Amino acid sequence: MRLSVVKLKGVQSVYHLLRHGIVGEEVKVQGWVRHFRKHKSVSFLQLSDGLSARSLQVVVPKEAPSHFNVGAAVEVRGILQQSAGKEQEVDLAASEINLIGDFERLNYPFATRKKQLPSTLRQHPHLRPKTSSFAAFLRIRSRMKYALHRYFQDKGFVLIECPVITTNDCEAAGETFLVDTLDPPYIESGEDVAQVDKTCSDNFFGRPVYLTVSGQLHLEAAACGLKQVYSFGPTFRAESSLTRQHLAEFQMLEVELAFCNELKTLLQLVEDIVVFSARELLTSSSDDFEMCQQYHGTSSKSLLSTISEMESFPKITFAEAVEILQKHTALPFSTMKHIGKASERYLVQHFGNKPVFVVDYPSDVKPFYMKRSRQNNTACCFDLLVPHVGELCGGSLRETDYTTIAERVSSMGMAHQLQWYADLRKYGYANLGGFGLGFERLLQFLLAIENIKDCVAFPRWFRHCLT
Amino acid sequence: MRLSVVKLKGVQSVYHLLRHGIVGEEVKVQGWVRHFRKHKSVSFLQLSDGLSARSLQVVVPKEAPSHFNVGAAVEVRGILQQSAGKEQEVDLAASEINLIGDFERLNYPFATRKKQLPSTLRQHPHLRPKTSSFAAFLRIRSRMKYALHRYFQDKGFVLIECPVITTNDCEAAGETFLVDTLDPPYIESGEDVAQVDKTCSDNFFGRPVYLTVSGQLHLEAAACGLKQVYSFGPTFRAESSLTRQHLAEFQMLEVELAFCNELKTLLQLVEDIVVFSARELLTSSSDDFEMCQQYHGTSSKSLLSTISEMESFPKITFAEAVEILQKHTALPFSTMKHIGKASERYLVQHFGNKPVFVVDYPSDVKPFYMKRSRQNNTACCFDLLVPHVGELCGGSLRETDYTTIAERVSSMGMAHQLQWYADLRKYGYANLGGFGLGFERLLQFLLAIENIKDCVAFPRWFRHCLT
Repeated sequence: MRLSVVKLKGVQSVYHLLRHGIVGEEVKVQGWVRHFRKHKSVSFLQLSDGLSARSLQVVVPKEAPSHFNVGAAVEVRGILQQSAGKEQEVDLAASEINLIGDFERLNYPFATRKKQLPSTLRQHPHLRPKTSSFAAFLRIRSRMKYALHRYFQDKGFVLIECPVITTNDCEAAGETFLVDTLDPPYIESGEDVAQVDKTCSDNFFGRPVYLTVSGQLHLEAAACGLKQVYSFGPTFRAESSLTRQHLAEFQMLEVELAFCNELKTLLQLVEDIVVFSARELLTSSSDDFEMCQQYHGTSSKSLLSTISEMESFPKITFAEAVEILQKHTALPFSTMKHIGKASERYLVQHFGNKPVFVVDYPSDVKPFYMKRSRQNNTACCFDLLVPHVGELCGGSLRETDYTTIAERVSSMGMAHQLQWYADLRKYGYANLGGFGLGFERLLQFLLAIENIKDCVAFPRWFRHCLT
Repeated sequence: MRLSVVKLKGVQSVYHLLRHGIVGEEVKVQGWVRHFRKHKSVSFLQLSDGLSARSLQVVVPKEAPSHFNVGAAVEVRGILQQSAGKEQEVDLAASEINLIGDFERLNYPFATRKKQLPSTLRQHPHLRPKTSSFAAFLRIRSRMKYALHRYFQDKGFVLIECPVITTNDCEAAGETFLVDTLDPPYIESGEDVAQVDKTCSDNFFGRPVYLTVSGQLHLEAAACGLKQVYSFGPTFRAESSLTRQHLAEFQMLEVELAFCNELKTLLQLVEDIVVFSARELLTSSSDDFEMCQQYHGTSSKSLLSTISEMESFPKITFAEAVEILQKHTALPFSTMKHIGKASERYLVQHFGNKPVFVVDYPSDVKPFYMKRSRQNNTACCFDLLVPHVGELCGGSLRETDYTTIAERVSSMGMAHQLQWYADLRKYGYANLGGFGLGFERLLQFLLAIENIKDCVAFPRWFRHCLT
């Protein structure tokens, strides 16, 4: 792990001192008090600087202030010395300790010494980054996002920042957030163009706009010029659900490839990303990983090892999935069109609790932009199901024919809003294919975290927007 | 430049073939037709694959289809050969050309051969990535964003994804976008808590929410646990302006540092980022840079060279800026509190058309979260002014005192929404400081692009949301 903290005025990181510190060196560290133990002749202060899971023992001489509150921000100057204790090799003999910001224990919501439940921490999102386990998670998330950027940049993909504000609400009708300035005149979608434009004239954009539910349509436009593109930004869903799997705002990694003739190409790329992520987590930041696992009482290490060695993931068709489910389970499966959460879980178990692709879903339950099979009864699409989470990723080949897309868009009453999207087919449209992968779900799966709200710094969900 | 395109089925990139292709090699390339010249015995097709600014000459034998439309997507197999022409070292003798997606020239808005104005391209954002100049810009933007991630990750900063949906509209009152689901009961901010909660009970979040105008407040919460953090995501401003400098949705790089005792620390970090960006642009992707500059008829190379060699940027106080402006200009400067756009431009020129910091603005025009000087009449803050753009970046030390912040928040009628923010001061608050830098402005400045709307893939501004 590279961690070359900005050397502002010679301040060093706890991590660096514990790994590379030289006994006898005079150093300066900054951080927060994790523990404070007072003895007769000397006191011990455990200092964490938030840059790693490690903490440094500071030996406080008798003449220093007699007490430090746990949580207080301090700046310490001193000499590194061989530690007398067994738990660490070096500690810091303080010559100077400055209290930078004190800590009021009285009203602090996490003040008790016992472990705080995730649901308790979630009620105080502004203080959650101060807990060592959530700080460890945030560092993992930061590194994982950067690793995924590296993955795509190294392969020549171009990052496109798809807009948050869009005119398109077609993919999640009824589950889209509206955007406006004060006193907006709301317009139902589907009215004719002239009327929308007229009625919305005092609206900021002159037409109804929404928070994006997917960057895919915009990414397709970019892929038509740049061949291989990705986006990695916020996405929104106004689902009135309070389950462990729902977020109103989440991050999605979306990929779009031109000259993508076969679904196989997408499946290989998705496999590669999942294996890459598992390896990344196993080989970097083991301290943070262990702290995170310990806090959540989970252990995903052996699963990650298994995945990181997998050549390819099993692949079944939707029809085969139905057969398996009917043969082995009594799960409700009335519609024969969808695979529910419980069925997803069963399929993952059935394949040895490993990731499994389901391909070729019935076309009539799939979105308008997906390419159909020749028989037109299935869509050229896939979902990736993974342990603990269910659907992690979904993708498809895109319909290439202008007339087909124009008709579908028109029958949805979206001819005005999506003409630009249909038009892409007229101008050198090159067999596009792509997918979207939920970033919080990826983290939830990799770390086996029970609730997805613990996979994001400031979660938003139904009835909950605390900050 | 590293460009190891996914080697799907042995397809190679144009860039790779032109740099490392071996004469006699059989290769496969995919891309779009840039030019097509028909001769008697042979035709020439110029192929671009969107992965770089380069294009490959394909020699089309007589027996191949007699015509290809410019813009069509094709797949070519052939043998690399020494080129007979002087403009390239190798070209591709095609043995097979497959038309993947044809191009209808009839209604294409950019069909004429002459250069299209930026304002024309802007009217068709979905087709803009197909133009070579805008594709070059998008590749530059992608690499620059990644380079900035690398910059911060290498220094141990933790990336925090600040939420887009927030309860806080205090920084841009009247210029915030509202978010809601259908038929929302809008509530004015500032009412008392119980009533807001009651009236909003059928609102998705149970309270009024907005699109973020800055991630700073959330970043501060994260910095209180992780010491040094950054965010790099979308930000929104509902400004009803149609100037060359306004976007309703833009990307902001925001940084927050704990244990930041002096403004100087922030200034040094900002200088370092700007110099790093200039160097990055000069040393990577020169093809794209030149294509971009040529299209916009600008030349920022010498400015970038100058900046990349600068030790530090000049720094003046607001009071000194006022003196300079009064002495040298007749610019309107009635309020003595703000520096207008024209004044910003003058100051930049005055200092040799180079970046200049202005520090210590009058405190009464600055936001509630800024630390004040001892005399309380100036804020411990700065703006960085740069050529072509004006304000690129603004930052400050943050007020550390709980009572002061609580009073300011209360007097703004935001006591309910921002109690969490004030509370950070109670729990080991460690002299925070930070800044925000507009990413589109950075690109506009580095590339000397006239209009900021040409610095983002899908721009949104007043009355304009085309896709």
